[in-house]
Amino acid sequence: MMEVRVLRLDHRRVRDARITTHVCLTARALGASGVFLSGDHDKKLMGNVQDVVKRWGGNFQVEYCKKWGNLLEEWKDKGGEIVHLTMYGEQVQDVTPQIRSSPRDKLVVVGGSRVPSKVYQEADWNVSVTTQPHSEVSALAIFLHMLYDGKELDLEFENGDMKVIPSARGKNVVMKNKTEKNNLDEKVTGDD
Amino acid sequence: MMEVRVLRLDHRRVRDARITTHVCLTARALGASGVFLSGDHDKKLMGNVQDVVKRWGGNFQVEYCKKWGNLLEEWKDKGGEIVHLTMYGEQVQDVTPQIRSSPRDKLVVVGGSRVPSKVYQEADWNVSVTTQPHSEVSALAIFLHMLYDGKELDLEFENGDMKVIPSARGKNVVMKNKTEKNNLDEKVTGDD
Repeated sequence: MMEVRVLRLDHRRVRDARITTHVCLTARALGASGVFLSGDHDKKLMGNVQDVVKRWGGNFQVEYCKKWGNLLEEWKDKGGEIVHLTMYGEQVQDVTPQIRSSPRDKLVVVGGSRVPSKVYQEADWNVSVTTQPHSEVSALAIFLHMLYDGKELDLEFENGDMKVIPSARGKNVVMKNKTEKNNLDEKVTGDD
Repeated sequence: MMEVRVLRLDHRRVRDARITTHVCLTARALGASGVFLSGDHDKKLMGNVQDVVKRWGGNFQVEYCKKWGNLLEEWKDKGGEIVHLTMYGEQVQDVTPQIRSSPRDKLVVVGGSRVPSKVYQEADWNVSVTTQPHSEVSALAIFLHMLYDGKELDLEFENGDMKVIPSARGKNVVMKNKTEKNNLDEKVTGDD
């Protein structure tokens, strides 16, 4: 199966901390195998995401990428393809079948405040999730969901410290050494 | 067709400004008709979202809701149903067909840092988008996408000042009075 990694451009430590964290966690939860962070080298954020991976399982790589231009070139040299998510691109519902049909690894690029034209030019596909302004987090989520055709919702994450058992009402979290049920005031996320 | 509104619980002015903005813009772009914001009464954020609505078109209501408990009761009294997005809920791929098959209006609740047990109890459905920690923005996006069965991607937003024409490379934005093409350094979002 193709490997999917996400490149987050132009991360700014203070302003983007939560959005970039949500980009990373969305990439992980929806089946990407790692993220490259460009812009500020935010070790705290990277540590927080790695902590989620440790607690919740699966494999997910978090890497800093100082020169994203080189990464784009290396990715293509190794036979991978590049998908740039932008509200100006071709519509996701039109191009995803074609993107999915190519078995090559995919680098999904999500922008920062200003995306250089080089990204538009290097991308194999510029893809828009609606032509409206919204969020790189939701654009990434819907693109991955459509790329994987919904199968990402059934992914299993192995070797975590805890696991949620879906429940109509309340919380059912299985810890490695104990089971917690219906503790409705407990907060268990990687973000807050 | 059913009306969908989003309730964002426990907004905190400084910490949540960007995430809540992304929640609002995601709700709008993916077909909800409005959002209720609870927690801090953040008029600046509400103004920013209303500005996006004015510039990009369509109808989208942004309202402050001081007492979300009353809103839940009023919503149900008027015949509406409540969907609470939580990583502890039933899986979205299992319950969305049932949710979609009911024509009643839907209030989609997305949490803040801690969600009171009352929300779990009042909700007609507690729904998880994966059982992993990620983002209320991506959970909302995928839920709306699945609820609308992808049709939200073809929505037209009327009466905006500008409109994006999908493009394989570059930017093509039609303004009310002029056309801008391939101005790759321009930033057009509601967020940055």
